[in-house]
Amino acid sequence: MEHPVPGGVRGEKDAERDEEEEEEEERVLVSKHTWRPCPTARRRLRVCLEWVKRQLFRVGEDWYFLFILGVLMATISFMMDHLVSRVYAAHCWLYQELGDIGVLKYLSWTLYPTALATFSSGFSQSITPYSAGSGIPELKTILMGVVLEDYLAIQNFGAKVVGLTCTLMCGSSVFLGKVGPYVHLSAMAAAYLGKMRTSVMKEYENKFKQREMLVAAQAVGVATVFGAPISGVLFSIEVMSPHFAVRDYWRGFFAATCGAFMFRLLTVWSGEQETIVAVFKIDLKIDFPFDLLETFFFVILGVVCGLVACAYLFCQRWMMVAVKRNWLTAKLLATDKPVYTALAVLLLSSITFPPGLGQLMASRLTMKEYLTSLLDPHTWWGQPPNASWAAEPGGLWQEWDHPSATIFGTLAFFLLMKFWMLILATTLPLPAGYFMPIFIYGAAIGRLLGEVLALLFPRGLHSQGPPRLIIPAGYALAGAAAFSGSVTHAVSTALLVCEATGHLGHLLPTVLAVLVANAITQKHQPSFYDAGIIVKNLPYLPPIRSRHTASYRVVVEEFMQRQVVALAKGDGFQEVLEALDAASDAEYPVVESAGSVHTKSGPN
Amino acid sequence: MEHPVPGGVRGEKDAERDEEEEEEEERVLVSKHTWRPCPTARRRLRVCLEWVKRQLFRVGEDWYFLFILGVLMATISFMMDHLVSRVYAAHCWLYQELGDIGVLKYLSWTLYPTALATFSSGFSQSITPYSAGSGIPELKTILMGVVLEDYLAIQNFGAKVVGLTCTLMCGSSVFLGKVGPYVHLSAMAAAYLGKMRTSVMKEYENKFKQREMLVAAQAVGVATVFGAPISGVLFSIEVMSPHFAVRDYWRGFFAATCGAFMFRLLTVWSGEQETIVAVFKIDLKIDFPFDLLETFFFVILGVVCGLVACAYLFCQRWMMVAVKRNWLTAKLLATDKPVYTALAVLLLSSITFPPGLGQLMASRLTMKEYLTSLLDPHTWWGQPPNASWAAEPGGLWQEWDHPSATIFGTLAFFLLMKFWMLILATTLPLPAGYFMPIFIYGAAIGRLLGEVLALLFPRGLHSQGPPRLIIPAGYALAGAAAFSGSVTHAVSTALLVCEATGHLGHLLPTVLAVLVANAITQKHQPSFYDAGIIVKNLPYLPPIRSRHTASYRVVVEEFMQRQVVALAKGDGFQEVLEALDAASDAEYPVVESAGSVHTKSGPN
Repeated sequence: MEHPVPGGVRGEKDAERDEEEEEEEERVLVSKHTWRPCPTARRRLRVCLEWVKRQLFRVGEDWYFLFILGVLMATISFMMDHLVSRVYAAHCWLYQELGDIGVLKYLSWTLYPTALATFSSGFSQSITPYSAGSGIPELKTILMGVVLEDYLAIQNFGAKVVGLTCTLMCGSSVFLGKVGPYVHLSAMAAAYLGKMRTSVMKEYENKFKQREMLVAAQAVGVATVFGAPISGVLFSIEVMSPHFAVRDYWRGFFAATCGAFMFRLLTVWSGEQETIVAVFKIDLKIDFPFDLLETFFFVILGVVCGLVACAYLFCQRWMMVAVKRNWLTAKLLATDKPVYTALAVLLLSSITFPPGLGQLMASRLTMKEYLTSLLDPHTWWGQPPNASWAAEPGGLWQEWDHPSATIFGTLAFFLLMKFWMLILATTLPLPAGYFMPIFIYGAAIGRLLGEVLALLFPRGLHSQGPPRLIIPAGYALAGAAAFSGSVTHAVSTALLVCEATGHLGHLLPTVLAVLVANAITQKHQPSFYDAGIIVKNLPYLPPIRSRHTASYRVVVEEFMQRQVVALAKGDGFQEVLEALDAASDAEYPVVESAGSVHTKSGPN
Repeated sequence: MEHPVPGGVRGEKDAERDEEEEEEEERVLVSKHTWRPCPTARRRLRVCLEWVKRQLFRVGEDWYFLFILGVLMATISFMMDHLVSRVYAAHCWLYQELGDIGVLKYLSWTLYPTALATFSSGFSQSITPYSAGSGIPELKTILMGVVLEDYLAIQNFGAKVVGLTCTLMCGSSVFLGKVGPYVHLSAMAAAYLGKMRTSVMKEYENKFKQREMLVAAQAVGVATVFGAPISGVLFSIEVMSPHFAVRDYWRGFFAATCGAFMFRLLTVWSGEQETIVAVFKIDLKIDFPFDLLETFFFVILGVVCGLVACAYLFCQRWMMVAVKRNWLTAKLLATDKPVYTALAVLLLSSITFPPGLGQLMASRLTMKEYLTSLLDPHTWWGQPPNASWAAEPGGLWQEWDHPSATIFGTLAFFLLMKFWMLILATTLPLPAGYFMPIFIYGAAIGRLLGEVLALLFPRGLHSQGPPRLIIPAGYALAGAAAFSGSVTHAVSTALLVCEATGHLGHLLPTVLAVLVANAITQKHQPSFYDAGIIVKNLPYLPPIRSRHTASYRVVVEEFMQRQVVALAKGDGFQEVLEALDAASDAEYPVVESAGSVHTKSGPN
């Protein structure tokens, strides 16, 4: 953060000076000629403009910067999405056009993501070593007050944008998202805007303001990916900091709303949507979202998600350490990062090859299609095959319906394989987010449970009255929130799924599932981002979690030293030598006679 | 807060001792007889129970207390609602049965609320002086660290519950709500539970834990009234404290979820609802919630709400001071609170008498019906009179449709009259909440704007394609959030309306309206609760709002003293006397000669 004033700002200053000079010249010209265009009117205009300027600045220039930040990040986010979907569509078209030539199809399927991921890894690493991974662990460290030199420098911005775009273009075979890096990008933009402000306003550098902008930037990062302003703010707060000020929350809220609004607005302007709707909108009928007895199954879902999250977090941490320790991977990661990326992505994409194992995990779907299909309002199993929605040719759910494995087989196989594939993907040294994959994984857990319940209770749980069918999409929603919430140790994911899908009917059971899952995971595993901090050995001072309970239960006995080496008054050289050998203490007690130091041991 | 250990806890301890004695006797009995029922099995059971107990306590007894708090407050809230609606229904039945006898009808309409309000005022005041009003200003003061003796004592609980129930039974003619007092009730319950814990667990009193429980209690208070866990937490945070810890937020979230869940569960168990749905559920079609161009009108709505909120807050503060200053009202409020209440309520209910002015403000509706009718998904104006929903006899909207004034007339008259009636109602010395009336008032502002827009643009704003009708209910939602948000200086009301109605489609425009309204009000007026603190002269240290901007702009000139009285070296007794008369300073500068002290004045 201690670079000289960046070029862009200097440019602006020059521009200002140029303008002033031009004005001066104009004045000179005017005075040379006899015709003067009504000087009082001009002065009045000037006074008026001055007044407007003062009024505008009275609002507080903070809000303008927050507005700019929100709109800027939303625009970049939208353009990135647009580009990624176009390129991926082109690849899919090529893949279809290749016909039935197996080898060509295989090469097209595997080489496309491998090349992109390798480029992403190599390009971003060559520019800056800070662009890999999600960036949230590092941001968390910065927010705790540690200065990570250059981590928020604007130079990283380009590298991370290009790298992230390439990663996203790889599609679902690599199975990575964009939330984390986007939060990092936002933070970089905010830091740069803050520097610009300092030089434009000619103010002192203000650490408080920098922090405020950073907190707002995180909210913008989440909000512009999901189009969810409120949960964007909450999620970023929960994940990033152990405490915060309400005034930061308002700033974050404002910036996130600007961002989310702009993000949705662009989809309308580009003609994608007719009006502003949720990002992953689902059409669930709201009349009877769930039966009261189903609450029990939602709690079960929470328990399952919590346990799977524990297993996932444990394996993920183990894998990150193992990759660092193993001599082959360690060497590759130290010197030849692109080679490691290429090998791993080749493996991942070979497994997802649709004519091979991929057909059992619906691997032709994109990340967004995965989520949309899992949140499908219809029940997949037990529907008459002539139902109008089921017979539709382009239905995404048909990808899940394997003729011999059934949907249960594909969902279970998907969960089994993606468990380790996702862990492998998190070790890749390229800019990528890990929230979206976790979100989809959770939705798949929920969908599987929901479909099983729909199979077990075809008429719903309500004994009397008309049949109230079980809606598996509700379980998918709750599962996504519970699993992603417990992996990141956040409860606001419950709101995030609601805002992202525009469906509130399942809020209460979702919140319940999230709370249960969080209770299990927070007890046994550090969060995904904390794990990153631990493995990367970042200088982070953890918040004192249980200061109240701990402070009354710790007794002296627990940390006193039981093996005390003492010297007796009359000890000679030999005994002193022995004592020096026996303990590494800096001081030795001198007692009347050997044996007079008693250490109480055992209870009492 | 310095009472001896309450009786209930002592009773519990005695019960424990009794149990132990019984066990002892049993053991003696067993040993006297020769038959012994397998002592190892019994010991094993004991060990097993001990283990279960330890496991349960390992979770942290906090969570049990939070759970109990949530469930308890939800049950009380539900029972209160249930009782109030039954009694009010009985009164309505009586009012209908009276037929056309005008005087009897008038007496029944006015005496019922007058008697109840007078009783509420007299009863609660006779038990404790702390039960009047909403209680939120006092709680805010407590959370800032000021000790308000006895404010959270459990003795107030009963008085406030009875008083609040009576106030709510008065119905919509007094136009008061329950949120504020309910938050106070929650806080009292939490304080009492905390004390119980301290004595049961034999722990030291822990100020931190007390504060944590208090923060959670506020969230429970809001959540159990609206059935909205997430916004309950956020709203209580925004209103109460300038900063908070994420760990408090999790606790509040857990307790609020338990409360909201229990609250909705009770409506299912009591047969009111078939399953868990939102408290004020509306059936808005989500396909096309609003046109992009309508965003402009939502911003306008925000501006209107912000301006009205400014006017309301100003008048309300003025009124509270005026009532204190006027000798008649001051005397009544000091000695005869019930008389003041009776007079004011008589005035209010006379104005709302349905055959009189009441027909122009739909005064036969209850508070809940007001809100439900204003959020009606249909457009009231311009519908064919033979539309099936419009012809339904029990439609709430017909109350608003006055034959000569039309819905625009009634809505405008409602807004005009309720403006001062609401301000008058806030001066009543009885337990009552002011959030719900403000909420309904905002919904009416929004509805009026929405209906006017529907009149101006009968085919919607979309120029091409099928007509996209304007939905006035969306404006009512946004208006409710914007007005209540700007009066309380909170932005989470945007989420509150969504959670309370179960409709998310209008989230983004609602957030926009709330932000605009808040920007206007926060700039010009203190919030409703801060106004209470100011008028009541509570010892409150306001948070330093703009510490960054302020710190650079305050110069010595602003607080230096300009009129300095100085003594010259050679001054005599007379001059010293004059100086003593001229200023009340404790010290006087002595200068070489009179006139050598210069105070710079004027700019430069």
